[in-house]
Amino acid sequence: MNELQRRIIEEGKVLPGNIIKVDGFMNHRVDIKLMRELAKDIRAHFAGREITKVMTVEASGIPMATIAADELGVPLVFAKKAKSDNIEGGLICSEIHSYTYNKKVTLIVSAEWLSPEDKILVVDDFMANGEAMRGIVDIISKVGAKLVGIAIAIEKGYQGGGDKLRASGIDVYSIANIDHAEPGNIVFRD
Amino acid sequence: MNELQRRIIEEGKVLPGNIIKVDGFMNHRVDIKLMRELAKDIRAHFAGREITKVMTVEASGIPMATIAADELGVPLVFAKKAKSDNIEGGLICSEIHSYTYNKKVTLIVSAEWLSPEDKILVVDDFMANGEAMRGIVDIISKVGAKLVGIAIAIEKGYQGGGDKLRASGIDVYSIANIDHAEPGNIVFRD
Repeated sequence: MNELQRRIIEEGKVLPGNIIKVDGFMNHRVDIKLMRELAKDIRAHFAGREITKVMTVEASGIPMATIAADELGVPLVFAKKAKSDNIEGGLICSEIHSYTYNKKVTLIVSAEWLSPEDKILVVDDFMANGEAMRGIVDIISKVGAKLVGIAIAIEKGYQGGGDKLRASGIDVYSIANIDHAEPGNIVFRD
Repeated sequence: MNELQRRIIEEGKVLPGNIIKVDGFMNHRVDIKLMRELAKDIRAHFAGREITKVMTVEASGIPMATIAADELGVPLVFAKKAKSDNIEGGLICSEIHSYTYNKKVTLIVSAEWLSPEDKILVVDDFMANGEAMRGIVDIISKVGAKLVGIAIAIEKGYQGGGDKLRASGIDVYSIANIDHAEPGNIVFRD
């Protein structure tokens, strides 16, 4: 059992609706030292892949993606969710379905900050249905950049998003992949 | 002129409506090395203040606040903007006016992750009217924690938010405080 899995077991809660609550160290109060451990693990997994940029989606994945970018020595680009943000000029968009809010959300990245020469590692805190990741992969494909892979802290394996992306040939690396979750019983995939 | 001021002059754009666009290094594509320089500067300014936590507001301030928390060796807590997030239990809220969206927004922090013993440094990328900071200061006051100060990358001094907070006795430290901005002419406060 790795450190993240141990923290999930010891501090996480399973709430109705398959929600894994880890907001004491992951996505509300953020344990930066744990983020550094996750980032080192991610760097080791993707060693030698000449990553030029880390990408994520606002907001809760940003701390982990920031430390991963710091560890890899590359810039971070985070996709925004459509609203009246101060983004001008050429935008690359991808529409996804948000299961959290049960509505369509458009992910937006300014074309200026991505290039076909980029080798991009996508980093996020959670993956469930994989819709956000599908949107980011779509944006990277529209730019013509190379997707090196996707690194996730906590995958809800039982929701299938990660396996769909793996089936399409993407290197999806999850540090804690949960196969089954109910109060008092969280089972990780080997 | 410091490094951040130089980057604002060389790469920033002034858009209509007093918008300072720095999304090539600050709040869309994020230059993590620059964030580290800002974090070191912030650590030096607040040296010896026994900070126990960094706080910010989602979303664009999170990368800078994450590196500041890393530099200070403390956890990060980011306030959420009210929506159907997976936050249960005791919430501490503060209502602010968002000038970006011209509507009321409620900032939320789970009471579980703040304590009256905390000595909190608030970090954000931008300050204009200071509404978000006023909300965070309000939350810290409701918890009974100590506010060590506020560290801002780019203050739009001409919008007055920072000076209002300073007048109330708060140590507001801005790395680039802009007194005047029009295309081709950005003037920093000494």
